[in-house]
Amino acid sequence: MTRSLLPRHLLPLAFVLLVACGGSPAPAEAPPAASTATDPLPSWNEGATKKAIVDFVARVTETGGPGFVPVPERIATFDNDGTLWSEKPVPFQLLFAFDQVKAMAAKHPEWTTREPFASVLKGDMAGVAAAGEKGVLGLIAATHTGMTTEEFSDTVQRWIETAKHPGTGLLYTAMVYQPMLELLTYLRANGFKTFIVSGGGVEFMRPWTERVYGIPPEQVVGSAGKMKLEERDGKPVLIKLPEVDFIDDKEGKPFGIQSRIGRRPIAAFGNSDGDLQMLQWAMAGSRPGFALFVHHDDAEREFAYDRTDKLQQFDKGWDEAVAKGWTVVSMKNDWKAVYPAGAPGAR
Amino acid sequence: MTRSLLPRHLLPLAFVLLVACGGSPAPAEAPPAASTATDPLPSWNEGATKKAIVDFVARVTETGGPGFVPVPERIATFDNDGTLWSEKPVPFQLLFAFDQVKAMAAKHPEWTTREPFASVLKGDMAGVAAAGEKGVLGLIAATHTGMTTEEFSDTVQRWIETAKHPGTGLLYTAMVYQPMLELLTYLRANGFKTFIVSGGGVEFMRPWTERVYGIPPEQVVGSAGKMKLEERDGKPVLIKLPEVDFIDDKEGKPFGIQSRIGRRPIAAFGNSDGDLQMLQWAMAGSRPGFALFVHHDDAEREFAYDRTDKLQQFDKGWDEAVAKGWTVVSMKNDWKAVYPAGAPGAR
Repeated sequence: MTRSLLPRHLLPLAFVLLVACGGSPAPAEAPPAASTATDPLPSWNEGATKKAIVDFVARVTETGGPGFVPVPERIATFDNDGTLWSEKPVPFQLLFAFDQVKAMAAKHPEWTTREPFASVLKGDMAGVAAAGEKGVLGLIAATHTGMTTEEFSDTVQRWIETAKHPGTGLLYTAMVYQPMLELLTYLRANGFKTFIVSGGGVEFMRPWTERVYGIPPEQVVGSAGKMKLEERDGKPVLIKLPEVDFIDDKEGKPFGIQSRIGRRPIAAFGNSDGDLQMLQWAMAGSRPGFALFVHHDDAEREFAYDRTDKLQQFDKGWDEAVAKGWTVVSMKNDWKAVYPAGAPGAR
Repeated sequence: MTRSLLPRHLLPLAFVLLVACGGSPAPAEAPPAASTATDPLPSWNEGATKKAIVDFVARVTETGGPGFVPVPERIATFDNDGTLWSEKPVPFQLLFAFDQVKAMAAKHPEWTTREPFASVLKGDMAGVAAAGEKGVLGLIAATHTGMTTEEFSDTVQRWIETAKHPGTGLLYTAMVYQPMLELLTYLRANGFKTFIVSGGGVEFMRPWTERVYGIPPEQVVGSAGKMKLEERDGKPVLIKLPEVDFIDDKEGKPFGIQSRIGRRPIAAFGNSDGDLQMLQWAMAGSRPGFALFVHHDDAEREFAYDRTDKLQQFDKGWDEAVAKGWTVVSMKNDWKAVYPAGAPGAR
């Protein structure tokens, strides 16, 4: 294996794995009731951010107006980790990998002495970090490849329905952002087709994005590995291989959009420098464009990190957003609620 | 350039380029009027083929029935060349390449003496064939790469609106199959999402599939080249490179479906052995499946070719269809009309 299935923004991960695995944000609170019965974005506080969103939608949907965009061209692309759900202490796909190592350990007695598997099994994040990047890649390969696409999908499905976040104790699907769920619904109600364009693995997201976000598998773009067509029991199967097909991060995002969607989005949503090229791509078309970054500035209700974060740096993107007048969401000030009401398993 | 943008099924092409470039099928005839006002498939003759289609759709759409399939899972995938439009004497994308060589010749004086460009410019198909596979790959690279995705899309758009088929004199979009247009509409009216999964280039198809087939760019899967993100005039552009990213043919079709769509189709439509793996994939799921091959047996109204065709062999697929009871369309017997009425430019 010369390249891994791990998006590059996860690569420094091994060196920061010690961060805050026990550092839990406050549990989800019930969002306040909608201010008016007709407000499509009740979890968004009134202000410049909410106004920018509503004004953009009004502009592109005004028949005969100067900014009108026909329905088929109303493409909106969303990053996932940190934009639609949380991503701390590490992207949740990596926590899935750790859980899978534990679940598979009985069939791999050699893991009790082999690093970084042994450290994962002992819950020793320092030991995992000590194994470095190569060690983490080995964890990903062991848990994401060698099985059929259907077997992997079933495993992800079971995990997402039962696994709990180590910090909050919530189901991972209870750590999606209520304001972003409302935004997805609002855009779709206005003729937008919503896509995920994430550095996360496409096969990891597709099993649950339709249920959780209302985004069907065919509208999910993500990092992907190569696959091999084989016959098993007289039927064709696709086996996931430990070789990279495509990394959907940074400059990979415009490529992913062009190769998988084939239309330029008129609205793009992200939260880190890994999303900058996607937002630039959305803003470079002939149509009106909308670009939004979620700024994680709410340590009390979620997490606070930006310019110097080792895994999800939000630095160049922030500067460009300010310079170009893009929209930057302050989670602290713009969001009435962060997670959906009634967690865990609220949805 | 070690691998080409040309799907493998086109590779033997150089050796058969002499076939029938002047051999023209009869021009399109107006299809008969629909037999009843409510028949969704008026260009299909009554019989076992039409009944198989209608019965399948009735089965998967019967709420509470044993074969019911929920709307989001009603995925139908269609090959393009030879399934939705004609593909003789050679796939139309190659005729586009020839036309582009002519259009670009003024800027390439060296082409008047360099093969196979010189032969293309003289209309000498024997000369093109003599340049072999490598020569054809050079034609594809020269006409499909080195420009931005938008420039290429604009070029395809102009070509498809004006270029005429050398045999029929028809616009290429007048050489789509009327019965298949009706089938696409019929499936969509029954909750199906229709996709193209073609060995042809995805960037070559997307500029016109929405207008011609009602299939939007994001539902087109096809062979693709790598691309590079660059900045031009302060804006990001994607440059098409002469390196293969993905060949969407044969075993590539299940991969293309899984990687781009992420759901298994319950209905798949093709016309050659290059589609066999796609049809097998559609039939291997837990849901009811439908597999259909179009058999080109109508030399009078279109073209006749099957088991021994060098470019589009229909041999193993035919045997498997017969053995497994899949549907094989006889263009001659099952179709009242082949092309839409009022050609050229009928649509």
